[in-house]
Amino acid sequence: MASSPARSDDTVTMNFGSGPGALPRAALLAAQEEFLDVEGSGMSILEHSHRGSVYDRIHEEARALFRKVLDLPASHEVLFFQGGASEQFATVPMNFLRPGDRAGYAVHGVWGEKAVQEATTWAPLAGAEAPVVASSQEGTRYLRVPSAAELGAFSGSLRYVHTTTNETIHGVQWHAEAIAAAVPAGVPLVCDMSSDFLSRPTDLSPFALTYAGAQKNVGPSGLVVAIVNADFAKECRKDLPRIFRYDVNLKEKSLVNTPPVFSVYLTRNVLRWLDAEGGLPAMAERNTAKAKLVYDALESCGGFYTVPVERAARSQMNVVFGLPNAQLDMRFLAEAKTRRMVGLSGHRSVGGMRAALYNAVPLAWAEALAEFLVDFAKRAG
Amino acid sequence: MASSPARSDDTVTMNFGSGPGALPRAALLAAQEEFLDVEGSGMSILEHSHRGSVYDRIHEEARALFRKVLDLPASHEVLFFQGGASEQFATVPMNFLRPGDRAGYAVHGVWGEKAVQEATTWAPLAGAEAPVVASSQEGTRYLRVPSAAELGAFSGSLRYVHTTTNETIHGVQWHAEAIAAAVPAGVPLVCDMSSDFLSRPTDLSPFALTYAGAQKNVGPSGLVVAIVNADFAKECRKDLPRIFRYDVNLKEKSLVNTPPVFSVYLTRNVLRWLDAEGGLPAMAERNTAKAKLVYDALESCGGFYTVPVERAARSQMNVVFGLPNAQLDMRFLAEAKTRRMVGLSGHRSVGGMRAALYNAVPLAWAEALAEFLVDFAKRAG
Repeated sequence: MASSPARSDDTVTMNFGSGPGALPRAALLAAQEEFLDVEGSGMSILEHSHRGSVYDRIHEEARALFRKVLDLPASHEVLFFQGGASEQFATVPMNFLRPGDRAGYAVHGVWGEKAVQEATTWAPLAGAEAPVVASSQEGTRYLRVPSAAELGAFSGSLRYVHTTTNETIHGVQWHAEAIAAAVPAGVPLVCDMSSDFLSRPTDLSPFALTYAGAQKNVGPSGLVVAIVNADFAKECRKDLPRIFRYDVNLKEKSLVNTPPVFSVYLTRNVLRWLDAEGGLPAMAERNTAKAKLVYDALESCGGFYTVPVERAARSQMNVVFGLPNAQLDMRFLAEAKTRRMVGLSGHRSVGGMRAALYNAVPLAWAEALAEFLVDFAKRAG
Repeated sequence: MASSPARSDDTVTMNFGSGPGALPRAALLAAQEEFLDVEGSGMSILEHSHRGSVYDRIHEEARALFRKVLDLPASHEVLFFQGGASEQFATVPMNFLRPGDRAGYAVHGVWGEKAVQEATTWAPLAGAEAPVVASSQEGTRYLRVPSAAELGAFSGSLRYVHTTTNETIHGVQWHAEAIAAAVPAGVPLVCDMSSDFLSRPTDLSPFALTYAGAQKNVGPSGLVVAIVNADFAKECRKDLPRIFRYDVNLKEKSLVNTPPVFSVYLTRNVLRWLDAEGGLPAMAERNTAKAKLVYDALESCGGFYTVPVERAARSQMNVVFGLPNAQLDMRFLAEAKTRRMVGLSGHRSVGGMRAALYNAVPLAWAEALAEFLVDFAKRAG
């Protein structure tokens, strides 16, 4: 790696942005090193055919590494899509709603709302019913996951139930195990796991379909990873354009058309790093420690910071918090920037502050943020 | 650039692959150089938010450069999509076919066939009629563009006519100007320009919508560039999932959801190179010279090589040719490889040989290929 221009630790920016977010340096360095000549081919990975042997090995290695780190059962397959999780919001109802069908949507944030919106728009085109929604919204806010009472809306026959694990904007996290236990048994379970995918060991076997936009813990934007029960995929509608059909993607091993070659390549690099670091148990341990540092710091300041989300639903990935007023917001962000901490402003739709603590955020960054939080409160409080 | 591991000219591989294909070295070198630290931000471009100022400048520069090099009229806008041209095969009929509508498809190769297939599948869901097809297919082959007689099928009221400029697999090219002159006036003209987009100056003003998968002359796979007449985009169906609507993409300036950040970034680099090289007139001059070198070499060998496509329709981008038998195919590819020429085998669906001469293929590679063609024929003929 001697010839590679390295980013020195002294000048690194601590990226707390919620996505696209920080990526493991090892994955980036490996890509930079061989950027013009991948595997001695004399060509950039960007110039390789998706039908050639170099890309084929990368594609299969990435699929195998997903299978390994997630410890997938034989019933489930790894698929790649484009278009972001937002496109899955549309293609899930397109694939699975037939005339007269109805789906259930559990919602605890904006991404779940968007999934409902696309399904509601699609339903009439499929001759299906509008979705049933179980939402934890209170006023304009989401501070917890849906309650058992709210999920009681899921009575009767449902084609599938769609859920979200981690709501990136509101910082509300619902663990996959809790979702699987909370929704009606026997209904295919679909889940958008974009922003906590690969952050902890997760049993995906109860899920018919999970998907994740790569640009949080997985890799660059432009790639969606889906883990699908093959039998469920094969139940999709066959009267759809081929490009959207899960069964076609399954059969073609995600090479229906040209895949986002570089995004898969870099994701492969991230998975190599994740595997070498100890896999999902190691990620979970580190992510738990990072989140504890930051939430503890926020709560140690005598109420200077508000932490709106209910304790049990606080996200380990996206820590949402508030300062006493907008003037202090500005000062906080400006001081953070002088400490090379960026990406801390909340989503424009909710305001306030937000710190993403994805897999690639080192413990040292969480320590630095915790220290800054306490120091700032002392001086400004 | 001193710290950057450079690919020496002596070891470079001559990539004649038809896509993903060769990219300009200047665009790749610039990306490698700042791969860990784009614009002094201390972060990789892969780690930047699509809502942040660094990416926003890149996004807008790419859009502006497309507008500049294509000399776009004010009526037309630049949009970015994911999913490849194959997804546009589906989203075009989704957006524009209403109940009772019928579209026309002119076909002179496999990509046009695929567009017909998706539109035919979609039409019943929209309550629309099956498309009218004008095809130049003879037996299993395409050796020319559709004739005036074949295009006579486009009578009556059509919602749009869909065409293709360059058929990558069969090596049959139909210039945009000829398309615009050949199809019925007054019908919105849609065109898949994936494999000759940006290869020559082209007046896009007669086209309601053109689109191109980036992985030929534009940039990495995972990005589609569409040039749309804004009034036409606004005519799309409003009862579709938002993610597919051209009017929504137009309004949101291609930031409906997270775009493929790195693909747009690298495309920006390619456009900077293209502009600095003299824009589309310079590309056209070079591409014409490269294609002449290779076709002349093929024809100078006394019939050793077959060049099936009609002279007037021969593609400047993808030169399709054949050798006398399969044994010579193998020997040709093996000898080419020892000269560091790769990507020369024809598409698996048609066999034979194919050489892509995209913008990033230097004249010197075409000269080397021409020399090899003549030499090989002398020795093997």
